[in-house]
Amino acid sequence: MKFELTTKDAGSKARAGKIITDHGEILTPIFMPVGTAGTVKGVHQRELKDDIKAQIILGNTYHLYLRPGLEIIQQTGGLHKFNGWDGPILTDSGGYQVFSLKEIRKITEEGVKFNSHIDGSKHLFTPENVMDIQRTIGADIIMAFDECPPYPCEYDYAENSMHLTHRWLKRCINRFNETEGKYGYSQALFPIVQGSVYKDLRKASAEFIAEQNQAGNAIGGLSVGEPAEDMYEMLEVVNNILPEEKPRYLMGVGTPANILEAIALGTDMFDCVMPTRNARNGMLFTTEGIINIRNKKWKDDFSPIDPGLDNYASNFYSKAYLKHLIKCQEMLGAQIASIHNLAFYLWLVKQAREHILAGDFTSWKNEMTKKLMQRL
Amino acid sequence: MKFELTTKDAGSKARAGKIITDHGEILTPIFMPVGTAGTVKGVHQRELKDDIKAQIILGNTYHLYLRPGLEIIQQTGGLHKFNGWDGPILTDSGGYQVFSLKEIRKITEEGVKFNSHIDGSKHLFTPENVMDIQRTIGADIIMAFDECPPYPCEYDYAENSMHLTHRWLKRCINRFNETEGKYGYSQALFPIVQGSVYKDLRKASAEFIAEQNQAGNAIGGLSVGEPAEDMYEMLEVVNNILPEEKPRYLMGVGTPANILEAIALGTDMFDCVMPTRNARNGMLFTTEGIINIRNKKWKDDFSPIDPGLDNYASNFYSKAYLKHLIKCQEMLGAQIASIHNLAFYLWLVKQAREHILAGDFTSWKNEMTKKLMQRL
Ligand SMILES: [Zn+2]
Ligand SMILES: [Zn+2]
Repeated sequence: MKFELTTKDAGSKARAGKIITDHGEILTPIFMPVGTAGTVKGVHQRELKDDIKAQIILGNTYHLYLRPGLEIIQQTGGLHKFNGWDGPILTDSGGYQVFSLKEIRKITEEGVKFNSHIDGSKHLFTPENVMDIQRTIGADIIMAFDECPPYPCEYDYAENSMHLTHRWLKRCINRFNETEGKYGYSQALFPIVQGSVYKDLRKASAEFIAEQNQAGNAIGGLSVGEPAEDMYEMLEVVNNILPEEKPRYLMGVGTPANILEAIALGTDMFDCVMPTRNARNGMLFTTEGIINIRNKKWKDDFSPIDPGLDNYASNFYSKAYLKHLIKCQEMLGAQIASIHNLAFYLWLVKQAREHILAGDFTSWKNEMTKKLMQRL
Repeated sequence: MKFELTTKDAGSKARAGKIITDHGEILTPIFMPVGTAGTVKGVHQRELKDDIKAQIILGNTYHLYLRPGLEIIQQTGGLHKFNGWDGPILTDSGGYQVFSLKEIRKITEEGVKFNSHIDGSKHLFTPENVMDIQRTIGADIIMAFDECPPYPCEYDYAENSMHLTHRWLKRCINRFNETEGKYGYSQALFPIVQGSVYKDLRKASAEFIAEQNQAGNAIGGLSVGEPAEDMYEMLEVVNNILPEEKPRYLMGVGTPANILEAIALGTDMFDCVMPTRNARNGMLFTTEGIINIRNKKWKDDFSPIDPGLDNYASNFYSKAYLKHLIKCQEMLGAQIASIHNLAFYLWLVKQAREHILAGDFTSWKNEMTKKLMQRL
């Protein structure tokens, strides 16, 4: 994996760049649709490519490890072959899912013991086997095994947790360096900055992470319930330290406005389940503002969902029809809204990139943020 | 609506024909995907056209009347405008759904009183208002309001029910003739033959229906639990009487083998929820036989779902991937399997038509039926 920094914005920390992987290029800033179990919910692979114009998608190590399991994925030659998405893929480390199991997991220095949410079977994730698992899944970008502390979080817990994440990172890097990609293309490892909402911890963590000199760096443990202002403050601290010639990935963020703000603070990569999860509930992000399609007012609005986007779902179907489908809990409603919301997120980061290149990012961002917040 | 009889098969009663509607032509024999609430579950409109190659779809009057309701449909200019499907549409009369409510409906000479399954609200369907409702929905082909008796059914009940259906039919035709299509294109009314599994009733009903001289005729009350042999026997009686220059529509049928047999007996049009409902449960109809994708044996079968079909879903995705999706109850699994099964049904009736035209329908049907029954 390589990263080229194309342009730095004069009025903010925003950057435009390009990530080059063996499965293709990614223009940054970029949003990555989440394909939990090897599928972006409700979306066909050709729709991801042609309508949403996704450049990279996520897979969840925890889910893929449990189902279909590593044997199947290895037999077919990796996740790209298994699900037919031949563009770049990033996998998380499984840590986030395992920690959210709460009752049925136990953290030790060695790693995390947990019980499957599906059948209760016992499993152990360690920094080493999580590297092996992600080697087998075969993502282009794989994530270090970290502890993501809850919010709010006592300082002591956050500090100890951060040190554990750092020790685990060393073990991740060792294992990663001892092993190779299994399918003939290369993989990059991104370490993860932690430290909750404590500036000094974030600073220490960012310095430690930067020293590891990996191909890219991630910022975890944000957007977990803290005020957005805290998130931006942490990002400022961290992005000042993480090297500018490496991509910066803010994990699990967020709303469209969060993403624009984080771009302004020098962040390049994002993922979130919000566009698809909200879609299934009838919450649409559009180029004119937010629509709750369940509201009565849309029942006889026969205009397209969002003519400001150029994909099929946003243009072919009307608001009234989508309202009807969501109300009737018809699958097609979730499908249409998911394509639309993801296309919107990809449109938004593409616009951000274009305005960074054009030199008017900040004024565009301020205008756009007002629109994004507007409830139609 | 017009019907042209293109070819009659020498070795059976099978026919190839063409139905011409204001929304386009339909080559028969044809299978019509069911779009209950104005959507074929899990399938985008462009997939219906490009992948499944549907030529006509169904809508359900009962469901559309309750949601989105007639006001919305009328405002937007009919169901074609509402859901964006601009090919031919057929609506059922709502009778079948209303009768299946059982506890919450009451039949009188006037019509059927029923409570909505959604909110318990009280409604009345009569032959007259069901014509008006279907005028408003705006299907190209609309169905008479009939009583579909249960199976098994006493002779007396079946006979009385048939006479009620006939009296209702006269009222349907009167109302239909007094009214016009609301959106500038023409609509055709199909009356429905009833009579349960009693040959003399089926004969009497077919004669009564034929006399009404409508643009096409339907056969109802079959595939409701009776043995397939009884269904074929009734079809033989009825199709001998229904005029050959009008299309014959066998309602709610059925399995691929049922459809081939009914084609051989001179039937032209079919609809059934089986391809989509079974798809959602992981049951696939393929050109080589039946697949239960939940079976262990498919877990590492990375071959395409069915290379014998030329649509995206059947070729792009592997059996192992589909098995994974269905097992994880991922929406995409239902979507892929629904496109596949519907594409298979449309492929099957197209093959039937080609073999009728080629003059080898019976030998092809016998070969194909063996394959269809095979569990892979
Ligand atoms: Zn998120
Ligand atoms: Zn059926």
